[in-house]
Amino acid sequence: MNFIETLNQAVENHQSHLSVGLDIDSDRIDSKSVLDVSELADYTRKVIDATREFAAAYKPNMAFFERWGSAGIRWLEETIEYIGDEHFLICDGKRGDIGNSARQYAKSVFVHYGFDAVTVSPYMGSDAIIPFLEEPKKGAFVLCLTSNESAAELQLQKIDGIPLYESVIELCQRLNSNANCGLVVGATQESKLASIREKAGDMPILIPGVGAQGGDLEASVRVGNSDGVALINVSRSILFAGDQSSKAISVKAREYNNRMNEILEINSG
Amino acid sequence: MNFIETLNQAVENHQSHLSVGLDIDSDRIDSKSVLDVSELADYTRKVIDATREFAAAYKPNMAFFERWGSAGIRWLEETIEYIGDEHFLICDGKRGDIGNSARQYAKSVFVHYGFDAVTVSPYMGSDAIIPFLEEPKKGAFVLCLTSNESAAELQLQKIDGIPLYESVIELCQRLNSNANCGLVVGATQESKLASIREKAGDMPILIPGVGAQGGDLEASVRVGNSDGVALINVSRSILFAGDQSSKAISVKAREYNNRMNEILEINSG
Repeated sequence: MNFIETLNQAVENHQSHLSVGLDIDSDRIDSKSVLDVSELADYTRKVIDATREFAAAYKPNMAFFERWGSAGIRWLEETIEYIGDEHFLICDGKRGDIGNSARQYAKSVFVHYGFDAVTVSPYMGSDAIIPFLEEPKKGAFVLCLTSNESAAELQLQKIDGIPLYESVIELCQRLNSNANCGLVVGATQESKLASIREKAGDMPILIPGVGAQGGDLEASVRVGNSDGVALINVSRSILFAGDQSSKAISVKAREYNNRMNEILEINSG
Repeated sequence: MNFIETLNQAVENHQSHLSVGLDIDSDRIDSKSVLDVSELADYTRKVIDATREFAAAYKPNMAFFERWGSAGIRWLEETIEYIGDEHFLICDGKRGDIGNSARQYAKSVFVHYGFDAVTVSPYMGSDAIIPFLEEPKKGAFVLCLTSNESAAELQLQKIDGIPLYESVIELCQRLNSNANCGLVVGATQESKLASIREKAGDMPILIPGVGAQGGDLEASVRVGNSDGVALINVSRSILFAGDQSSKAISVKAREYNNRMNEILEINSG
């Protein structure tokens, strides 16, 4: 199966467009003491078990694992193994380096960890993106228009009348001969999502920023999926839902999944 | 000591502007068999011992460690410990993420590993840079104009007549209230280095791209250090010099250090 088929199958099998972002932040977990890595790993397994049924994808956020050094990376390795083969796996690392180094990152995320996709920064141009697109089974979501406030500082600046993020879409289309390049577009950018979807054709879009960041879920799901697939990522709102019990996490993931399916008029039975 | 003082002291103590990039690539080491991580760690210690005297800084390239997973990160942790306190330590990870994640990356590179500086991508704007500038003892080198061929695709595009990389310089100046923000400028961009140095004032500049990438050493050293400090990074040309013996590596590092000091007319005795 190629990249798009793997992605579509995960969506189909789970009747879900939900990506659960694994930003497991020890400061957000209710606890009397500071949690160690093994306790964070316990919490991660709890989240995975509570959400398996409702998620198409998992998106570990590298920052939250890396900050614990080699112990954190072991926890990441175990997490990926624990998730298993039934979900689409996205490495959220926003990697962006010259070809020689990017090839090593590609080996890291695709060969060592076995991720299906990785998030990549376009600042260094095509050299920094191509190594993640060479294997048709694997692919990259390139940062296009992000969900944060300061996205506008560079991404919305106009080059010959065209905003920088649109140049990124053009760059990605040019590099997309293996049909394995997607875009990251923040849910807080709903006013621009329709024109991005139009320009991007049927490229897959990864949409973070609903939930804690306040992005528009309805527009993200509907417009994002109007042509090609959009995965909607939710992190904090699911990970730390309610009283942080399995049940509270599960209820929240089911709620997101149901709402997305309602918007898409999918009967998930 | 604040960031600039730490950097200046490393330069002063070693009479060197050389940063040795630790891109330890198993495919480039002469060997009859594929090397494992412990053999790569041996090679890394050999490089460090052969270059300690001639380097101001070490710059581990995260890609080459990450690709071996937790075992690679243990090797990175041991490498940092082995280098010790006498050199300036740069984490070359080109990290670039939203504030919440960037803060975790800052904890990773500064608190867990103890690096002095990190390389950061500006695509997401100030949100993604600020968390690396909050502690005045630590700092960031922000990607400005990189050494690779496709740098031009976005970085040289003009916004209201001003190339994108100049907007990045302005952004960095605005964020530099702790005097701990620097720039990454490729040595292959020598025609633009003088104007970058002028616009950047005395911000430190990290210059990769001499050696294997063919950038201009003389211009990089002279123009880079005309106001403020420029560290010149060399990776492959030193790491895999000659017959890859301690002696060959040491001779090459001494040669770079001497040439840079000649250009700067420093008598290193």
